[in-house]
Amino acid sequence: MKQVSSTKGHMTLPVEVGQEEVVLNLYQRWQADALRDSDGTTMPESLAKQDSDIYSVVCLVRADQQFANQHPEYLHRKYLMSFPVTAMAETLVIQPLDGYSKDKYELDDDSDPKCWWEVRNRTTNTVIDVSLWEFDAATQQVLIKQTQPYHEYTVTFMARQVWDSVSMYNALTNDWKGPRIKSLDPYHPECRAHLIKHFAQWLDEHPNTTVVRFTTFAFLFVIDTGEQNQDIYRDWTGYGETVSPRALEDFKKRFGYALTPEDFVDAGYYNGTYKAPSKRYQDWMTFVQEFVVDFAAELVAMAHKAGKKTAMFQGDHWIGTEPFLESYQNIGLDINIGAVEDGVALRRLTDSMGEQTREARFYPYFFPDVFREGNDPVVESMSNWVKIRRAMLQKPLDRIGYGGYLSLANKFPHFIDHVSEISREFGDYLQHTQGTESQKLTGKIAVLSAWGMARSWLQNQARDQRFYVPPRPDVMEFVGNNLLECLAGLPFEVEFISFDDIIQNGISEDIKVIINTGDANSAWSGGECWDNSEVLVALRKFVGQGGGLLGVCDPSAFQKNGRYFQLGDVFGLEKETALTMGRVAMPLSIAKEHYLSQYVTEGLDFGNPSYVYPQATDIAVLAAQGQHLALTARNYGQGRSVYMGNLPFNMKNARLLQQVLIWLSHNETQQHAWLSDYPNVDVAYYPQTGMVAAVNYVSEPQQVTVSNAQGEFVNISLEGYEWKWISI
Amino acid sequence: MKQVSSTKGHMTLPVEVGQEEVVLNLYQRWQADALRDSDGTTMPESLAKQDSDIYSVVCLVRADQQFANQHPEYLHRKYLMSFPVTAMAETLVIQPLDGYSKDKYELDDDSDPKCWWEVRNRTTNTVIDVSLWEFDAATQQVLIKQTQPYHEYTVTFMARQVWDSVSMYNALTNDWKGPRIKSLDPYHPECRAHLIKHFAQWLDEHPNTTVVRFTTFAFLFVIDTGEQNQDIYRDWTGYGETVSPRALEDFKKRFGYALTPEDFVDAGYYNGTYKAPSKRYQDWMTFVQEFVVDFAAELVAMAHKAGKKTAMFQGDHWIGTEPFLESYQNIGLDINIGAVEDGVALRRLTDSMGEQTREARFYPYFFPDVFREGNDPVVESMSNWVKIRRAMLQKPLDRIGYGGYLSLANKFPHFIDHVSEISREFGDYLQHTQGTESQKLTGKIAVLSAWGMARSWLQNQARDQRFYVPPRPDVMEFVGNNLLECLAGLPFEVEFISFDDIIQNGISEDIKVIINTGDANSAWSGGECWDNSEVLVALRKFVGQGGGLLGVCDPSAFQKNGRYFQLGDVFGLEKETALTMGRVAMPLSIAKEHYLSQYVTEGLDFGNPSYVYPQATDIAVLAAQGQHLALTARNYGQGRSVYMGNLPFNMKNARLLQQVLIWLSHNETQQHAWLSDYPNVDVAYYPQTGMVAAVNYVSEPQQVTVSNAQGEFVNISLEGYEWKWISI
Repeated sequence: MKQVSSTKGHMTLPVEVGQEEVVLNLYQRWQADALRDSDGTTMPESLAKQDSDIYSVVCLVRADQQFANQHPEYLHRKYLMSFPVTAMAETLVIQPLDGYSKDKYELDDDSDPKCWWEVRNRTTNTVIDVSLWEFDAATQQVLIKQTQPYHEYTVTFMARQVWDSVSMYNALTNDWKGPRIKSLDPYHPECRAHLIKHFAQWLDEHPNTTVVRFTTFAFLFVIDTGEQNQDIYRDWTGYGETVSPRALEDFKKRFGYALTPEDFVDAGYYNGTYKAPSKRYQDWMTFVQEFVVDFAAELVAMAHKAGKKTAMFQGDHWIGTEPFLESYQNIGLDINIGAVEDGVALRRLTDSMGEQTREARFYPYFFPDVFREGNDPVVESMSNWVKIRRAMLQKPLDRIGYGGYLSLANKFPHFIDHVSEISREFGDYLQHTQGTESQKLTGKIAVLSAWGMARSWLQNQARDQRFYVPPRPDVMEFVGNNLLECLAGLPFEVEFISFDDIIQNGISEDIKVIINTGDANSAWSGGECWDNSEVLVALRKFVGQGGGLLGVCDPSAFQKNGRYFQLGDVFGLEKETALTMGRVAMPLSIAKEHYLSQYVTEGLDFGNPSYVYPQATDIAVLAAQGQHLALTARNYGQGRSVYMGNLPFNMKNARLLQQVLIWLSHNETQQHAWLSDYPNVDVAYYPQTGMVAAVNYVSEPQQVTVSNAQGEFVNISLEGYEWKWISI
Repeated sequence: MKQVSSTKGHMTLPVEVGQEEVVLNLYQRWQADALRDSDGTTMPESLAKQDSDIYSVVCLVRADQQFANQHPEYLHRKYLMSFPVTAMAETLVIQPLDGYSKDKYELDDDSDPKCWWEVRNRTTNTVIDVSLWEFDAATQQVLIKQTQPYHEYTVTFMARQVWDSVSMYNALTNDWKGPRIKSLDPYHPECRAHLIKHFAQWLDEHPNTTVVRFTTFAFLFVIDTGEQNQDIYRDWTGYGETVSPRALEDFKKRFGYALTPEDFVDAGYYNGTYKAPSKRYQDWMTFVQEFVVDFAAELVAMAHKAGKKTAMFQGDHWIGTEPFLESYQNIGLDINIGAVEDGVALRRLTDSMGEQTREARFYPYFFPDVFREGNDPVVESMSNWVKIRRAMLQKPLDRIGYGGYLSLANKFPHFIDHVSEISREFGDYLQHTQGTESQKLTGKIAVLSAWGMARSWLQNQARDQRFYVPPRPDVMEFVGNNLLECLAGLPFEVEFISFDDIIQNGISEDIKVIINTGDANSAWSGGECWDNSEVLVALRKFVGQGGGLLGVCDPSAFQKNGRYFQLGDVFGLEKETALTMGRVAMPLSIAKEHYLSQYVTEGLDFGNPSYVYPQATDIAVLAAQGQHLALTARNYGQGRSVYMGNLPFNMKNARLLQQVLIWLSHNETQQHAWLSDYPNVDVAYYPQTGMVAAVNYVSEPQQVTVSNAQGEFVNISLEGYEWKWISI
């Protein structure tokens, strides 16, 4: 057990030149113990002398712009597909970059088009022979011959990125001045050698730095940018910007087959993380991970040798170094830093393997968009904090931090007090938990998706998201299906498994409930992964022998063999996709005597109408929206299944999920010590420290009664938002 | 031009034994000129002597129950798929009839199971070799060996129907007494010979009959019945009950290949009319049509020889004799009778080819469910009548009629007056139109579906329908997409075309607008018919060269080559099916300056959120629900396209459709004579009689202004529901 005191600091703060006094003041009030310089700042001398850790940010691939300007051949490349163009005659001219930002992309003249590009007829999905098209470097055009009128054509081309997406964002959105930053691709040995040399020098030049904070290593997440310099495609975990001819050639040697341009542009879908990945694309990801881990490990070793600790920010150029990958541990990092806006983001930080210290960087950033007159930054912060606290009760968090300009925050005294209170609560948490874990209910919950562990606690993007305009366009707010946020604060052991895991290793004995949640066609639901009888048999057997199966939204959705929900036999229902309209629907009747009926109360939210109807007579319909099923339960063999139309996050939904998971794991007849049945209050028991925590999610006072380990009832009163610790 | 007078009768009334006085009274008040006996009645002597046509109902396949009881081998058969059963061990027993009505179905012991049945593993979709299963006639069970645990199995078997669906409905729903009726399959030559003999005798025994009203010829529409004698599947136009071993053997000779049981049960989907039909199933339909037309023509010729006219009711055993089939005219019928509840049903009756007299049988039936104390039958009747009138203005109708017990209707004097008024209006219509057609706008509108002409004016069943519980379960009410009802009353020439039509004949020169409307996967939208580059090219070319394309709901929906809407390039948009969630959506801005913008008013209904977003910059967003596109317009080449999220029927939607079709056919700059712009009033001009009709859809008075052929404005005032004729 780590020994942690509440008085020692536990927060990382950004420095700000000329604001030393403000920084020092907040450093003390907020119980900080580390300072960091940000992209836009450097560490003032007076602060560097504090008895604190000094985090210094380094983003090596952006660090030497002179070298980047001298070596366009080492810039980041990517495959882009031209927007489809319809042939109106028997020749067609396509300007590949039409529709894309000319400030960001250039056609890559280091890669021979005839070798690295691809022209397709998208109407017939056929590759056009290279003899039938020509690239004219002078006009930057592709001329295609013998085209078929009214067929659509595309050119997949390699683009060179001459403006880094993050630099572009800061320039265009935050009005940052300064040159347009370019990113270098360390996959090129000469480039890598240069960056290593540069880093060695950087280490020399940062004697006061105690923690090297990598932001990050090699390849940026994906942002594609349109003609007006607007974002047109985003994938915060996408591998689209990792390509170079050299890497593609090495891939072929390593895997024994060559990838094509189409493997990357994917008919214009670009292998979005929300899509079930192809085997070929997974191979490419493995290839990238092998390289990036090797490169990152080299950098980390250098920092260690220089007597410094290392931290990685889970974002920016973090492709290939996602902490849930097994290979991540080979890098040797000391600290994982995550940007945390809710419980899911917190669990994404805390739940990965390894002995790293976990530091949560909270929102809001101290930037003028939030810290402006008339706006109360406490609103966003508190809304985040109540979600984060729930998740912190499930897995230990070690440190917290903020970013931005402290001088801006300092203009909001109410906010300063609010963060002081957060830091105090966090200090208490460290002291009372001592880095140990709270008690969980018996039986592990597994979330089944196409990605499994690799994408643990990644918010399941949903169709509804696209049609939601958030108040702040750059802040993630998840709408629609958000079961993971409900789950993040519940007392269950959770793991994420993939279809491949099931096929290769079967279903582990300690798993009591499997959840499949997400839109049809998505990696979360599984898409074509359900086109596999082994998977169906394994899951039917799992439930048949006593397991629990929870399906939300479009579980097991894949049209085949007379079913849309491939496990519709287990759930006892089917989705209407216009293929079964002749089946006569009987008006629904709501089951009132089922164990779960007592938990169907006002305030539950099952999202949009499900278009799901019963197909078994022994299904218990617990809730419906008109004739659309919203919540059902059914026995199957010795096991149980539950279907929910959707599960957006709210506390009533979260508590319903708790009851559903208890019922699915056949635990409903047991009395559970220190378990809250109340929507607004979470209770956690730390057996190793003998402490119990109770947190109030809302501003109204709450009274709850829970049983202790001896089965006696204990009353707990909480003020609005109060977090109480009880020693037992 | 036919010479029609308003004083001669034009209505067929049902007779009722013991109610001769009531019948005679209504016969005169309602301007009837024909009487018919129904299934449950026979013609009283006193009425048979009226100077009127006497319609006598005959349903030959149900007419000789003694013969049916003696010859189970001639009863109607069908393929049913057992409900899937999951194997839990290495043998599995399936009782094929489990879940099906034992009152209705028997296993057909005239068809050798090893020859005519099929056992499938539905998890792998493989046929189980006949050596691995046995049917035990004693237990009525199928034993399957070497099954794989947790795989699902089905037995597709031939069932014999020992209770006709309509007889069953009348017994169970209307509490009719009397024996359970069986239907005979005239495909068997011995059975056909017997029925012909029976009909010859029937003709002899009905000397007063002037019109033989066939209800109908050979095969019933599909109703599958469950264990509790409840309907579990319905398809009013399905070919599922036309099967026999003999017919299957003849099919093989005729088409050169054999159909399998799977061709009929279709993985449990049963080839619902709402599904795009397979080529194999279309061959089977052709085969059935050839037989039924031959049989029906023989009966009609016999009736003609006996000096009687013939009428067919479009329903019941009408499979194979749908009036929109070209082969229908070979039967030689004199009168088509349709049950008509709305404008679409009216057009289904009036729009088919041929010189038959068209007679509409109106709702409600004079049955106790509607004609009961406390209910006002005028409400349903008026709601139907205002829809039917709109459609009558577009295509001529010759006669009307009612069914049920006149004595029941007679208890509602208000209803008697109401029908007197309907009949008066209908008489005026006959006189003023003289059977001619009103003037249409230039340019034909084609509705494109997988069925084309064969299923003209068939209501497009939609997903929303399943989740709607109608007040009267046996009355059709269409919810969701109902563009056809909007279209039924608009002054456009309409035809229905199929994808095959386009592939084989191209798009006819006189077509100005093509409509594709319906749910994804449905025959209406087209489903896999869109997996054809010839179709895409033909439609792009059609629009590119000046045509109009209207897509509603899921037009051209088929996932392939990077698109869900295959003509998304023409519409300039895409549907979010969870494959494009990374594409960044810009907040929508509504176009206010588009020609169609003026018609986007309060009261329009675009149904549920569409999940459709823009993918072209030059798209005009005319209406949206939040960020979901509801109505858009775009130019493509020299042509135009419009997308609508949905178009349920209401008069504002109908009028919007009129404006959209005018814009799509580039007719918006012309002044149209006698065209109503008002939602509640339809105006029609009959050039051959020089008459103009104006009808008010609602109970409130209306004032409208329309231009005449000289471009002068004419004011028309209408009382509530008034139908006015103006001579010009």
